[in-house]
Amino acid sequence: MTLADKLKQIVPNDRISTNETVRLNHSKDESFHAASLPDVVVFPRNKEEIVAIIRFANEHKIPVTPFGVGSGLEGAAIPLKGGISLDFQEMNKIIEINPDDFLVRVQPGVTRLQLNKELGKYGLFFPVDPGADATLGGMASTNASGTTTVRYGAMKDNVRDLEIVLSDGRVIRTGGKAKKSSSGYNLTELFVGSEGTLGIFTEITLQVHGISEVIIAARAVFPSVNQAIQAAIALLNVGVPIARVELVEGETIQYMNKVYGTTYSEGASLFLEYHGSKGSVESDVQLTKEIFNEFDCYEFEFETDSLGRAKLWEVRHNSLYALIHENPGKQVMNTDVCVPLSNLADAVEYTRKCIDESGLQGDIIGHIGDGNFHAGVLIDTDDPLDMERANQFNEKIVHYALACGGTCTGEHGVGLGKKKYQLLQHGEALDVMKDIKKVLDPKCILNPGKIFE
Amino acid sequence: MTLADKLKQIVPNDRISTNETVRLNHSKDESFHAASLPDVVVFPRNKEEIVAIIRFANEHKIPVTPFGVGSGLEGAAIPLKGGISLDFQEMNKIIEINPDDFLVRVQPGVTRLQLNKELGKYGLFFPVDPGADATLGGMASTNASGTTTVRYGAMKDNVRDLEIVLSDGRVIRTGGKAKKSSSGYNLTELFVGSEGTLGIFTEITLQVHGISEVIIAARAVFPSVNQAIQAAIALLNVGVPIARVELVEGETIQYMNKVYGTTYSEGASLFLEYHGSKGSVESDVQLTKEIFNEFDCYEFEFETDSLGRAKLWEVRHNSLYALIHENPGKQVMNTDVCVPLSNLADAVEYTRKCIDESGLQGDIIGHIGDGNFHAGVLIDTDDPLDMERANQFNEKIVHYALACGGTCTGEHGVGLGKKKYQLLQHGEALDVMKDIKKVLDPKCILNPGKIFE
Ligand SMILES: Cc1cc2nc3c(=O)[nH]c(=O)nc-3n(C[C@H](O)[C@H](O)[C@H](O)COP(=O)(O)OP(=O)(O)OC[C@H]3O[C@@H](n4cnc5c(N)ncnc54)[C@H](O)[C@@H]3O)c2cc1C
Ligand SMILES: Cc1cc2nc3c(=O)[nH]c(=O)nc-3n(C[C@H](O)[C@H](O)[C@H](O)COP(=O)(O)OP(=O)(O)OC[C@H]3O[C@@H](n4cnc5c(N)ncnc54)[C@H](O)[C@@H]3O)c2cc1C
Repeated sequence: MTLADKLKQIVPNDRISTNETVRLNHSKDESFHAASLPDVVVFPRNKEEIVAIIRFANEHKIPVTPFGVGSGLEGAAIPLKGGISLDFQEMNKIIEINPDDFLVRVQPGVTRLQLNKELGKYGLFFPVDPGADATLGGMASTNASGTTTVRYGAMKDNVRDLEIVLSDGRVIRTGGKAKKSSSGYNLTELFVGSEGTLGIFTEITLQVHGISEVIIAARAVFPSVNQAIQAAIALLNVGVPIARVELVEGETIQYMNKVYGTTYSEGASLFLEYHGSKGSVESDVQLTKEIFNEFDCYEFEFETDSLGRAKLWEVRHNSLYALIHENPGKQVMNTDVCVPLSNLADAVEYTRKCIDESGLQGDIIGHIGDGNFHAGVLIDTDDPLDMERANQFNEKIVHYALACGGTCTGEHGVGLGKKKYQLLQHGEALDVMKDIKKVLDPKCILNPGKIFE
Repeated sequence: MTLADKLKQIVPNDRISTNETVRLNHSKDESFHAASLPDVVVFPRNKEEIVAIIRFANEHKIPVTPFGVGSGLEGAAIPLKGGISLDFQEMNKIIEINPDDFLVRVQPGVTRLQLNKELGKYGLFFPVDPGADATLGGMASTNASGTTTVRYGAMKDNVRDLEIVLSDGRVIRTGGKAKKSSSGYNLTELFVGSEGTLGIFTEITLQVHGISEVIIAARAVFPSVNQAIQAAIALLNVGVPIARVELVEGETIQYMNKVYGTTYSEGASLFLEYHGSKGSVESDVQLTKEIFNEFDCYEFEFETDSLGRAKLWEVRHNSLYALIHENPGKQVMNTDVCVPLSNLADAVEYTRKCIDESGLQGDIIGHIGDGNFHAGVLIDTDDPLDMERANQFNEKIVHYALACGGTCTGEHGVGLGKKKYQLLQHGEALDVMKDIKKVLDPKCILNPGKIFE
C-alpha cells in the first residue's frame, strides 16, 4: 500500500492528492529556495481528521509539513523531507465574531482579506498586514508582521488563544479569552512563530480592533533615504501613534509608476497612514509636517479617499512584483533583518553600498518604524554566480544586524534561509529550543529540517 | 559541613546568612500563605556567583527559590521545600540606559521606583506599575501588570531580552535589541511569568517610554458599580487611549479617606489617567465626559498637579493597607481573576454577592480596562472558619471566571494559591508545561512546589 492508500483509510479519497501539479504547487513557496515535492497532499476538514493523520504519521515516522497559501519568503512550507503536505484550504471558516470582546475565532485556512471583509461588517479589522493574502495559520506560524506593526504589533501580540494538535495527537489550548493572564507558562507565544515544527494550529483566537473614524494615507518625499529615516524616527520619538510608516527608495517608485500607472514623485519616500478621531489625526498630521520640515521634506501628499489609499498600499505591497515584472526571468532574494532604531540609518546605508558592490540589482523597502527592512536583490536561481553573490550579500546584512543586537529575521521567519544564523544569533539558547523541540516532537515528524536540523 | 559552610566556598561569608530574622524575612511574602523557612539566604553579586550556586545546588539537589522583595501575593517566593533563598538586593544596578532605542538594561534586583527615578532624568519612564515597589526580576517572573497595563501592556509586552542561568548552570540570552523578531522560538515570553521555576534572571532588558507632555489624573463618580464599569468599557470601545482606568467601590473610598486624609466622594468611582499631547488629552477628556454622562456620572474631578496626582495613585495603590489598617489583626486574601470585558459587570456583581454571602468583609478593586479585578477579603489566618470561608469564596470567583473563558490569575501569578486550578484552566496543556519544566530543570531544584507539583 502506498502512503496515499493508507491515508485514504483516514480521510476521504477526494481530499488526498498525489497529482503532479498539486504536489508541485506544494513543493515551494514565494521564496527563491529550491522546491521539494511532498509525496502526498492532504486537505483536512477538521481537527479530528488532523489528529488521525498526525497519529498515523507519528507512528510511521512520516514527515508532515503544514501549508497555508505558500506566500512565505523563507521556504518554511517546503516539505524538505517529502511526506505529507497538510493544506488548510478546506478549513477556512470564521467560527465566531465577538464584537463585545474584540475577539474572533477562525480556522487556520482563513486568509487575512477574507477575515477583514467579514470583520468590516462589524466596524472591526484585524491589523497584521504582511501585504500578501496569507492564511492566519501561516501568519501565526511565522509570527508575521508588516506595515501596521509599528502601531498594532506582530502576530504574537494579537493571538489570544491557539488550539493545537501535538505530534502525538494530543490536542491542547494555550490561551483564553481574557486580555491578560499570569497563569501557567505562556505557551501561546512559544507556539506563535514555531513554523509548524512544534504543532499544528487547528483554531486561532485573534484580537481585533475597531476601524478608526478617520484614516488618512500620505506620502512624504525627502532629498535622501537618510533624511527620510531620521524623520520617521523623530516622528515616533515624539509619540505620534502612526499606523504605518514605510520607506521606499526613489528608484523603486520609478518601477511602481511604470508598472502600476501611478505618478508618485520619484524620490526617497515615506508612505504613511494615520488612524484616529478627526481631532487627533489632524493634530498628528500637523505635528508630522513640522517634524518632516526639519528633515527637508519637499513634498507631502495625502490620499484621503479609500480608493487612493487602497492604491497606495497595493502599490507599496506589490513593489516586489514590480521589480520582477520589469526584470523578466529573475527571482528576488529578500533580506529581512531588523535592527535597533538607532542603527537603522547606518544599516540601510551599508545595505545600499553592499547592493551596489554586489553587482546585483536590488531595492530596499522598510517597515522602518520597527527597524525592519528588506533588500530585494534580483537573481537567476539557475546561475551559480548570481546565487553566490546573493548569498554573500544576505550574509553581510545579517552579520551587520547581529553585530548591533538585531535579528536575522524580523518577520519572514527562519525556514530554510536563516537556519545557518541560528547559532550565531541565539548561542546556547538554541540548545534550549532544540530541547523543547525534542520533548514536543520526539520523532521529528513536524516540518523536519526547518529552523534547525 | 552545613549547607551554609559549603556555600561559603562559593560566595563570601558576609553574603550568606542563616540568621533567624533574615530567614524569617525570606520565609513569606505579602500574601496570606503560610511561611516556610529557607535553610540559608544568599545575596549574590553577579552572574558568575549565581552560576556557581546553581551548579552546586543542582549537583546536590538543593532547592533554590529566587526572592525579589517578597511583595508577591500568591506565595511564589516562599521556599516551600527549604534550601536556598536567593536574594537579589545586591544586584540592583541599572547597567545601561539607551534613550535612542527606548531601552534599559538592569540587574534583577532593581526596583520599579528606583528605575523610574533614574529614567526620569532622560524624560523616560517604565510603565508597568503593580503599586508595590517590586523588583524588576520579581515582576518579570510573575508577568506582573497593573494600573497602566490597559495602555502599555504587561511585563511580557515590555521585556525585550533576558539573561538567564538555567538549572545546570548554562547561561542563555533569549532576546535582543530589535523591536521584533521571527527568529527561533520565543523563549523570552516563555520565561516571563515562569515564577523562578525555569531559570534565574540575571539581567533584564526592558522597553521604556517617553514621559508624555501632559499627564492628567481624574476621578469620576457614578450611582452604581455597574454604571462605572459600563462607562469604562464604552470609553475603551471608542478608542480613547486611556493610560489608567481603575474601579474603586464607595466603601473602599470611605476607608481611604479615613486612613489617608483625602476627601474623595464616597461613591462607585473610576480613577483615571490621561497621557498625551495637550491637544489629544483635551479631546480625550472631552470625549470621556460625553460618554460618562450617558452613564449618569455625577462628579468628574481632575488632579492636574503632580502632587494631587501622586496622592490619588498612592491612595489607590495602598487601598489594601487602608483595609488592613482599619481592621487590625486581620490579613487579606486577594482574588485575582481576569474575565472578558463583556462578562466584567456580571462578574463583579456576582463577586459582591459572594462577599456579602460569605460573612466576610471585603472590597473590590479593579484594573477594569483589562477585565482584571481583585476582591480582598479580611481574614484571621489562624481561624480555620475564616480560612475555609475565604477559600470557598476564592474558589467560587475562580470558577466563575474560568466558566466565561477567563483566567484564575490576571497578574499575581500561580505561586501556591492557584496551583489547584491549573488543570481546570489549562487541561492537557498543563502536561506540556510539565514537560518543559522537566527538560529545563530535571532535578526540580528551581522553586519546587510552585505552579504545579
Ligand atoms: C509580496 C509579499 C510580501 C510579503 N510581505 C510580508 C510582510 O510584510 N511581513 C511578513 O511577515 N511576511 C511577509 N510575506 C511573507 C508571507 O506572507 C508570510 O510569511 C505569511 O505569514 C505566510 O503565510 P502563508 O499562509 O502563505 O503560509 P505558508 O507560506 O504556506 O507557510 C508558512 C509557515 O506556516 C506553517 N503553517 C501554515 N499553516 C499552519 C498551521 N495551521 N499550523 C501550523 N503551521 C502552519 C507552514 O508549515 C510554514 O512553516 C510576504 C510575502 C509576499 C509574497
Ligand atoms: C499592595 C500591593 C499591590 C500589588 N498590586 C499588584 C498589581 O497591581 N499587579 C501585580 O502584578 N502585582 C501586584 N502585587 C504583587 C507583587 O507586587 C508582584 O507579584 C511583583 O511582581 C512581585 O515582585 P517582588 O520583587 O516582590 O517578587 P517576589 O514576591 O519576591 O517574588 C515573586 C516571584 O519572582 C521570583 N523571582 C524573583 N526574582 C527573580 C529572578 N531574578 N529570577 C527568577 N525569578 C525571580 C520569585 O521566585 C517568585 O516566584 C501587589 C502587591 C502588593 C503588596
